[in-house]
Amino acid sequence: MKAAFYVGNTTMKTGPQPALEPGPGQVQIKVGYCGICGTDLHIFQGHMDRRVHMPQIMGHEMSGTISALGPGVEGFKVGEAVTVMPLDPCNNCPACRAGHSHICQNLKFMGIDTQGAMQTYWTVPVHTLHRLPASLPFRVAALVEPVSVACHAVRLGGVAAGEYVVALGGGPIGTLVALVAQNHGARVLVAEINPYRLQLLRELGLEARDPREKGFPEYVTEQTQGAGADVVFEVTGSAASAELMTKLPRTRGRMVVVAIFAEPPKIDLFRFFWRELQLRGTRVYEHQDFEAGIRLAASGALPLERLITQTYPLEQVQSGLEQMERGGTVMKVLIRCGEDA
Amino acid sequence: MKAAFYVGNTTMKTGPQPALEPGPGQVQIKVGYCGICGTDLHIFQGHMDRRVHMPQIMGHEMSGTISALGPGVEGFKVGEAVTVMPLDPCNNCPACRAGHSHICQNLKFMGIDTQGAMQTYWTVPVHTLHRLPASLPFRVAALVEPVSVACHAVRLGGVAAGEYVVALGGGPIGTLVALVAQNHGARVLVAEINPYRLQLLRELGLEARDPREKGFPEYVTEQTQGAGADVVFEVTGSAASAELMTKLPRTRGRMVVVAIFAEPPKIDLFRFFWRELQLRGTRVYEHQDFEAGIRLAASGALPLERLITQTYPLEQVQSGLEQMERGGTVMKVLIRCGEDA
Repeated sequence: MKAAFYVGNTTMKTGPQPALEPGPGQVQIKVGYCGICGTDLHIFQGHMDRRVHMPQIMGHEMSGTISALGPGVEGFKVGEAVTVMPLDPCNNCPACRAGHSHICQNLKFMGIDTQGAMQTYWTVPVHTLHRLPASLPFRVAALVEPVSVACHAVRLGGVAAGEYVVALGGGPIGTLVALVAQNHGARVLVAEINPYRLQLLRELGLEARDPREKGFPEYVTEQTQGAGADVVFEVTGSAASAELMTKLPRTRGRMVVVAIFAEPPKIDLFRFFWRELQLRGTRVYEHQDFEAGIRLAASGALPLERLITQTYPLEQVQSGLEQMERGGTVMKVLIRCGEDA
Repeated sequence: MKAAFYVGNTTMKTGPQPALEPGPGQVQIKVGYCGICGTDLHIFQGHMDRRVHMPQIMGHEMSGTISALGPGVEGFKVGEAVTVMPLDPCNNCPACRAGHSHICQNLKFMGIDTQGAMQTYWTVPVHTLHRLPASLPFRVAALVEPVSVACHAVRLGGVAAGEYVVALGGGPIGTLVALVAQNHGARVLVAEINPYRLQLLRELGLEARDPREKGFPEYVTEQTQGAGADVVFEVTGSAASAELMTKLPRTRGRMVVVAIFAEPPKIDLFRFFWRELQLRGTRVYEHQDFEAGIRLAASGALPLERLITQTYPLEQVQSGLEQMERGGTVMKVLIRCGEDA
């Protein structure tokens, strides 16, 4: 078998890698497809060199087939189609004991803190498995992980039918948040600056505008009869968007931070006071979100295949990452890990 | 009768003022005491000259006795002890229609946008009245308004018995938030830098520490067995405190912004993401908070009289404001408005 390794200095190398036999409580998966996440790009760019272990096998958005079961593993069998919820919590810290094991204080995020899915066979703890319905193509199933991020954010944002929702950022996660919110019955507006993505968002049936054009907050106010948005999702991580975010919600409106902010932005806390605004951070997903993500992906209600703009074989992960780095005509990049996938 | 007027340029003048006869739906109150709020100091310092109408009669934390009823007013009678919830909403904007009339988009805050209570007789809309129990001294009753701010913040913060609460700021509002949270059964720590206030807070039965001393976040972590605080109230409005705020909560912990931030501070949104933190702004109070504030003040459970550090007659409002401006040995300053109060 083979694997793609991040070896530092914006360099990926593909080479042979022995398949890891599953130990007790583990399962080996023959990987079908693996998406490239923004975090993978962040690793590739060297921003997480102190956290990863080079040579690092990245990848945590995947689909595949069980190829071997470790000793004592029950409830799954070889040949079943699965995806992985790539979180390995300690089950012993205050967060885990409070029921927040998805944000465990000692969380191992698989593919970052452990070796990931960009290899022929991936061996993982059985508790991370989620079964895939036969109707779900492996390509689309590799998007279950980011769909679950969106399901988690929309759930924690409390989006209800008829509400007016703004997604700031129309990359893969912002677009999925918008699609999931729309699927919940919300009216949705996406703010995006990349012309290709603006066009794609519109083709996906979403209203999309460039927030740098004059009058974006005023447009939201008009569309809500002077009230403001019910929920705003921040999915860019930029200071400009963080500034725009607080201008949009109605009194007691909610903001949800999904993005990873490298630097603390200035936030208009006066506006929080004045309108009694609410903000919450959301991170990854819980098992219920993964189940919702699988159901939603399998339902065909979301145009997920159309989000996949490029597919590369495992040997060309470097090209996929460079494509994402260049931006432009790119949304979700998939890596084909199995020779027969 | 007489009134104290803000005439600009950090200058208060006391002079004669005709008593306003109550019109339809209005009530005239003989004012007993009126507290000086931080907002009054802000007005005095000239920061709100574009909002107030000079000569401006300030004051919105008051107690008094009904002296006259306007035509058609029912349900109250002359001689009853009352306080005023000083909010006059439009009842027609999106916020009012959504049930958030206390943060009406066209709110008139009485004593800022209208003439206030620092006069012998104050004429107000009857809907603002709250009856005071006979057991509640007029001096303490003047604190019902800030107590209600604290009741509102603690209610929206969802403070539950046994939770660990940190109040950042031990001025009048921060201290009241701490006392109300403690009254709800929370364990409370107050962060304050003024040595006089630190001492006073301890005399009131609150744990208080200087947050500039090394190890403040670590202390909160230790006190919560590694988890972090359940709820943090930001009551300083300072950038340093806004930075400290996000370091303290547990996973999914709550932060409540009670302070008025003149400048947007930098906020660690990465921490929001990482721990799925929640923040909400709270502003003033709703009628239920005023009723809770009156009940709590009348119960004697809070050491409210001890928060009153100075009392001045109406003619010396200027001295009271200058005392607050100097800081040091001051917590709540009261103005005696009635000659016989």
